[in-house]
Amino acid sequence: MTTNPANDPPAWATRATHTAFRNRWLAVEIDEVELPTGAAYEYTRLLSAAAGVAVIGFNAAGHVLLEREYRHGVGQVVWQLPGGLADGDADLRAAGLRELREETGHAPAQVNDETVRYLGSVWDNPGFGTAISHVYAAWGLERVSDTRRDPGEFVALHWVTPARLKEAVRAGVIRDRVVVAAVGWLVLNGWM
Amino acid sequence: MTTNPANDPPAWATRATHTAFRNRWLAVEIDEVELPTGAAYEYTRLLSAAAGVAVIGFNAAGHVLLEREYRHGVGQVVWQLPGGLADGDADLRAAGLRELREETGHAPAQVNDETVRYLGSVWDNPGFGTAISHVYAAWGLERVSDTRRDPGEFVALHWVTPARLKEAVRAGVIRDRVVVAAVGWLVLNGWM
Repeated sequence: MTTNPANDPPAWATRATHTAFRNRWLAVEIDEVELPTGAAYEYTRLLSAAAGVAVIGFNAAGHVLLEREYRHGVGQVVWQLPGGLADGDADLRAAGLRELREETGHAPAQVNDETVRYLGSVWDNPGFGTAISHVYAAWGLERVSDTRRDPGEFVALHWVTPARLKEAVRAGVIRDRVVVAAVGWLVLNGWM
Repeated sequence: MTTNPANDPPAWATRATHTAFRNRWLAVEIDEVELPTGAAYEYTRLLSAAAGVAVIGFNAAGHVLLEREYRHGVGQVVWQLPGGLADGDADLRAAGLRELREETGHAPAQVNDETVRYLGSVWDNPGFGTAISHVYAAWGLERVSDTRRDPGEFVALHWVTPARLKEAVRAGVIRDRVVVAAVGWLVLNGWM
């Protein structure tokens, strides 16, 4: 879908910025910007520590590996994909497979361009900041090791059929943008 | 997709919480929680001002109304749907149609349960906070009024075919989770 940049709204100019809050997980920055009209405007941005990476994996029977995890952000147990932060990883695919292995003990029997494919990426909220999740699909998952989870990770694994997964997304049982997007990309590619 | 709650990981107990930052757009809260292991843990949460609501609308020719808008969060012009914050709106559908009309000057010729349908909702990031977007689909869009945009809204409107929209999501041209999810829900429902 090509666009003519001349038809796009102009970018804003940032005149000054200051950090209103920062810890190891995120920073809140207040930008003083100049709008296209020339007016001054104050804009609150969130900077997150690292990109997210997640993997939607299928076993030999074609079932999908999902997680139930308590997420303190929303204060409930949610359906999600194995994944985590790509802490300084140059290779996002490797980071995704590492998170998959650590959280679930599973890995694809072979790793190549046919068995592990990049699906796409989604921003958490392009109005708030640059936080983004990159999502891969992997086929031929096998149990290869014990899990090795972070201190705050308590995860129950579930294998579900593609039909049940698609229905759970359609019906709103699943609300994590990463799972919803992954199912959309797989369907649009004809891979599920 | 039913689950046995007995198989779910337990929720965490919040022992104390304090607000580390707050302005009109968001708050950062630090929770002192007790993990299921009994260990103490500090967790950073984001509280956003209001839920988001967006509308993916079709005109009589079946084309979809998209926006190009500069979003200062990511610092670029992005593809997105008409929408905004549901500021205290009890009726999310009405809030979505109001945002649609204000940002684009368009509305469905008729508003009923056939012409405006709830598609679903996605969290920005269930690990960070409760920020959520609710998405509706509307059919029969017509130009009904001038636009009335917020001071920081500079929007270019585009009508695209469903085929081009699906390809743009599949190929990663569109990365806003709301658009990606909307396309997924429409396809899973057989509505696009």
